[in-house]
Amino acid sequence: MKYIIVGAVAGGASTAARLRRLDEHAEIVIFEKGEYISYANCGLPYYIGDVIKDRNKLFVQTASAFNKRFNIDVRISTEVIAINPSAKTITARKQATGEVYEESYDKLVLSPGAEPVRPPLPGINSEGIFTLRNVNDTDYIKAYVQQKKTSKAVVIGAGFIGLEMAENFHELGLDVTIIEMINQVMAPVDYPVAAFVQQHIRSKRVKLRLNTAVTGFTKNGDQIEVALNNGEVLIADVVILSIGVRPDTRLAAMAGLQLGQAKGIQVNEFLQTSDPDIYAVGDAIEFENPITHQSMITYLAGPANKQGRICADNVVLGNVRSYKGSINTAIVKVFDMTVGTTGTASKHLKAAGIEHIVSTTHNGSHAGYYPGAKQMTIQLAFAPKDGKLLSAQIAGYDGVDKRLDVFASYIKQGKTVYDLIEFEHAYAPPYSSAKDPVNMAGFVAENILLDHLRVFYWNDLDQLQPDDLLIDVRRKDEFEAGNIEGAINIPVDELRNRLHEIPSNKTLYIYCEAGLRGYLAQRILRQNGYEAVANLSGGYYLWNACTT
Amino acid sequence: MKYIIVGAVAGGASTAARLRRLDEHAEIVIFEKGEYISYANCGLPYYIGDVIKDRNKLFVQTASAFNKRFNIDVRISTEVIAINPSAKTITARKQATGEVYEESYDKLVLSPGAEPVRPPLPGINSEGIFTLRNVNDTDYIKAYVQQKKTSKAVVIGAGFIGLEMAENFHELGLDVTIIEMINQVMAPVDYPVAAFVQQHIRSKRVKLRLNTAVTGFTKNGDQIEVALNNGEVLIADVVILSIGVRPDTRLAAMAGLQLGQAKGIQVNEFLQTSDPDIYAVGDAIEFENPITHQSMITYLAGPANKQGRICADNVVLGNVRSYKGSINTAIVKVFDMTVGTTGTASKHLKAAGIEHIVSTTHNGSHAGYYPGAKQMTIQLAFAPKDGKLLSAQIAGYDGVDKRLDVFASYIKQGKTVYDLIEFEHAYAPPYSSAKDPVNMAGFVAENILLDHLRVFYWNDLDQLQPDDLLIDVRRKDEFEAGNIEGAINIPVDELRNRLHEIPSNKTLYIYCEAGLRGYLAQRILRQNGYEAVANLSGGYYLWNACTT
Ligand SMILES: Cc1cc2nc3c(=O)[nH]c(=O)nc-3n(C[C@H](O)[C@H](O)[C@H](O)COP(=O)(O)OP(=O)(O)OC[C@H]3O[C@@H](n4cnc5c(N)ncnc54)[C@H](O)[C@@H]3O)c2cc1C
Ligand SMILES: Cc1cc2nc3c(=O)[nH]c(=O)nc-3n(C[C@H](O)[C@H](O)[C@H](O)COP(=O)(O)OP(=O)(O)OC[C@H]3O[C@@H](n4cnc5c(N)ncnc54)[C@H](O)[C@@H]3O)c2cc1C
Ligand SMILES: CC(C)(COP(=O)(O)OP(=O)(O)OC[C@H]1O[C@@H](n2cnc3c(N)ncnc32)[C@H](O)[C@@H]1OP(=O)(O)O)[C@@H](O)C(=O)NCCC(=O)NCCS
Ligand SMILES: CC(C)(COP(=O)(O)OP(=O)(O)OC[C@H]1O[C@@H](n2cnc3c(N)ncnc32)[C@H](O)[C@@H]1OP(=O)(O)O)[C@@H](O)C(=O)NCCC(=O)NCCS
Repeated sequence: MKYIIVGAVAGGASTAARLRRLDEHAEIVIFEKGEYISYANCGLPYYIGDVIKDRNKLFVQTASAFNKRFNIDVRISTEVIAINPSAKTITARKQATGEVYEESYDKLVLSPGAEPVRPPLPGINSEGIFTLRNVNDTDYIKAYVQQKKTSKAVVIGAGFIGLEMAENFHELGLDVTIIEMINQVMAPVDYPVAAFVQQHIRSKRVKLRLNTAVTGFTKNGDQIEVALNNGEVLIADVVILSIGVRPDTRLAAMAGLQLGQAKGIQVNEFLQTSDPDIYAVGDAIEFENPITHQSMITYLAGPANKQGRICADNVVLGNVRSYKGSINTAIVKVFDMTVGTTGTASKHLKAAGIEHIVSTTHNGSHAGYYPGAKQMTIQLAFAPKDGKLLSAQIAGYDGVDKRLDVFASYIKQGKTVYDLIEFEHAYAPPYSSAKDPVNMAGFVAENILLDHLRVFYWNDLDQLQPDDLLIDVRRKDEFEAGNIEGAINIPVDELRNRLHEIPSNKTLYIYCEAGLRGYLAQRILRQNGYEAVANLSGGYYLWNACTT
Repeated sequence: MKYIIVGAVAGGASTAARLRRLDEHAEIVIFEKGEYISYANCGLPYYIGDVIKDRNKLFVQTASAFNKRFNIDVRISTEVIAINPSAKTITARKQATGEVYEESYDKLVLSPGAEPVRPPLPGINSEGIFTLRNVNDTDYIKAYVQQKKTSKAVVIGAGFIGLEMAENFHELGLDVTIIEMINQVMAPVDYPVAAFVQQHIRSKRVKLRLNTAVTGFTKNGDQIEVALNNGEVLIADVVILSIGVRPDTRLAAMAGLQLGQAKGIQVNEFLQTSDPDIYAVGDAIEFENPITHQSMITYLAGPANKQGRICADNVVLGNVRSYKGSINTAIVKVFDMTVGTTGTASKHLKAAGIEHIVSTTHNGSHAGYYPGAKQMTIQLAFAPKDGKLLSAQIAGYDGVDKRLDVFASYIKQGKTVYDLIEFEHAYAPPYSSAKDPVNMAGFVAENILLDHLRVFYWNDLDQLQPDDLLIDVRRKDEFEAGNIEGAINIPVDELRNRLHEIPSNKTLYIYCEAGLRGYLAQRILRQNGYEAVANLSGGYYLWNACTT
């Protein structure tokens, strides 16, 4: 047997290693057009930012070590430029010499990854404007920043990599401006979750320009003038373009492999392309999202690595193992904050026509009485009919990754908010509370489903009618420190004695800081004959983040 | 409706609060024999150790705040001394005045908790020997340690509370000795996991005496002589007795409620006792363990709190909600280390006659190339037939709680090791690796089940036959720094070229540092005609911890 693999990083190298473990005697050849294999793409921003100091650490494997361990023929600096599926050969070109040759295969695996989007803006190819995908990009950026003694950076695109680069430039002492075309950072999460991140970014004195597009670049000496759609011009020493990636499907398309709706390589559940002897994994493929059932691409290292293992099994053992799709669990550190998502955001559920309810809770990362607890915000989306979990998004400072992983495990398994209630977490004061934030999110979601709790949302507030009554049930001092216009203040602990102040014919909109006291107030009111009572999901804390 | 609750801390207060939310107009009376309600039992060791500095932080609620918020009649310093189920009354006694009175109920909830075991050893009631269960105990210990300027502490019993007390005394500057009757700390975990904790405790210069029992105490001035079963006598200024607790069932037993095999209050799935108008929750009850199907008691705050919510629903709404039992997820901080368990340890599975396979892996808490990654050890137990997860135990320094929670979610749902492989975690370099330790544990377990990997265990080594061959496949420098007696060294990367050195008729026992290279070696060997090859589960790293 002879296996050829195209691309020797996350998906490709993982496939190759597992292939060898399953088949000691096969011939395995892996092609990589770049100089390096098995490198830590995800670490690149941190190497630029000097958080990772030793460049060698970026390489999980080298070509020669990989060969020694796995007896794999690693051909670096060699690009596969064509596939001939009927002859079962590929054509390769050595970068150094230009030499072109053919190589036959029994099974071929493609893991070419994705490439950064570079829109055809005027001046886009000026020196000092970079995208970041591989080690070479990294070396260029790092050298440029050091040699040119840059002091002003503009990061275009506030996705995960953009935010990581903004943070790392900031840590290097650069003055950073982030430009983002839409109204929020981190497109995969919903606005309220992004709002907390935006607050945090601004608190670090990184400038954030939302709803802003770049129209072009002009080189001026060592500097770059970045023109914005509002007519403004920003001056930058270095520009990072991080507005997204697209699957690298050139080779696949040329070979006549079927591409999908999302313009990735179409694969079946066994990660097999339209040619049964060619498999594909990683950023280049598309498959059905288990939540929306739409065809989608996942640009994430975890899925790429796991697909590699599945693919190798199917290649060697026949199609024995299904890939069940990715729920797009992703996380990013943004300065002191951690933000992440698993499942499908509310806005994307809406776009896909999937009915759902959203609920937001805030909880401490661990017991409040033990030092160091930090607040986190959890936003769930779930199905109104059966409570099936559709997504969880979290923004906070500690323990965010933990809760995200727990939610991911539930979502991956198609579980419901009711299952969250029964989650039996590990509790000791340094790690959690007797009721974990995951349980709390479950309680509140369940209360909504069982109509113990009726909610309204921060962006419903401008639709209040003149006759409606907005009640702030926090303490007087909290109310006085800031409140929502038009609200009256009746602290929840006084509510039972002040019911006579509340007219019974009005619709009542209740809020507190986080949502808990508003819920208690609603329980009291509804059991005292007030029927039209809604509680602000996520409370004043969320409203404040979303509106400032 | 009139609800009475006995015990106003984890289980009781939680029940009361939920009762009120469900039934605004009921009369709710809660009795607490102590002075305090709703306190943080789990925080008590940390208050003694000055980690929690403000005593007020220990009180999640006070009697008066609880009354204000929930309109609950809180009777502190009042003990319920009898229940009359046929009359549906309880008898209460005010501690201050001795006044005794009756109170009727429609539904009664018991949450009396557990009490520390105090064996009838000579001198056990000497001044300076404490158990720790409540705020009073805490105040006594803290005052004693301060006033007596204690410098030597003996902690008897190396369970969770014992270890927390050892750490907190150590942080206060005391010289600490831990005495434990069995051969390991933390009885709920298996020996190899405990072995790592023991190493760590000793590295902090806390003395640990395993396999040692206390036979009695003698007061000598301000000091206590602690006599051991080997004839030795230790001198202590303060002694903590933390050898376990037993359910407080006095009231229930007196009232004729049925107790179970484990000597807790017997409840059905609705947390109802043998009297349908009396429910019970928390440390005092027993129920079927979902893994062993044996009747068991769980002494944990999470379950107590969650049972409270379930119980309140059943009391108010009729028996609508089942409690599915606890998988005993528990965690403890031991100095810099975190150790935890979820599900049933291998030794307890054995005792219950449940067939299972054990597998151990070691992985970084996050990507190795990003600063600060720490190794953790994961031990799984799973069913040989279908791969059903039976337990996970982890010892490490960072990210342990996260993985434990993920395993807990899988175990709670009756999932298998195959599900772990598909776990789609949140990956960015500060949080994990592209394959999470949970995935890795799953891969390895699956490999065992599919016979890709055959393992042997650290304690099998003394049963090797003279004809067997023990091969260390680590690098030469690793081998030379320490190895297992009798091993020869063939580094995995040289193995393919040195097969001729390995006789084909011997049984081969392979090991490396963690298990991965041994697995690779096994793949090579078995596909080259060697059939009898086993790999040391957990590697040299585990063996070393278990044998030193
Ligand atoms: C800066 C950065 C940060 C990231 N951070 C994270 C993160 O925190 N978490 C996360 O989950 N994901 C992250 N990712 C995404 C993750 O790295 C990718 O999802 C993953 O690497 C995809 O694996 P792949 O094998 O499909 O592609 P790649 O890992 O990109 O590998 C593809 C390889 O194929 C080679 N190749 C392409 N065409 C050919 C050809 N014709 N011939 C020969 N070789 C070819 C390319 O040179 C490339 O080396 C990050 C990515 C970047 C760039
Ligand atoms: C020091 C310590 C540390 C702990 N750490 C952890 C941890 O980290 N994680 C964890 O999960 N668990 C921990 N626990 C265990 C946890 O606190 C208990 O599991 C939990 O509190 C049990 O709840 P409960 O309601 O059953 O009992 P309790 O919370 O103990 O409450 C019972 C109450 O009932 C009262 N009572 C009893 N009988 C009567 C009566 N007849 N009349 C009136 N009142 C009565 C008692 O005075 C007591 O206040 C710890 C416990 C201790 C003591
Ligand atoms: C390095 C690379 C080649 C790894 O390939 P790999 O050998 O499959 O992966 P790992 O080294 O993580 O090892 C996993 C294997 O070891 C086994 N293993 C791990 N610990 C083990 C233990 N203690 N005992 C036995 N086996 C063990 C696993 O079962 C798995 O084998 P399997 O797939 O046959 O079940 C590939 O992941 C890579 O190139 N990574 C870097 C690029 C990248 O991912 N970039 C994006 C993220 S920054
Ligand atoms: C304090 C104590 C009385 C809490 O009772 P509680 O009111 O049930 O619990 P919490 O304050 O955690 O609130 C949880 C409730 O608020 C709701 N809630 C939480 N956040 C919310 C939000 N943002 N919006 C709406 N509702 C919210 C939950 O749904 C839940 O209500 P439910 O049970 O009716 O669904 C009880 O847990 C206690 O005494 N604890 C201390 C003792 C102890 O547990 N010791 C051992 C551990 S150290």
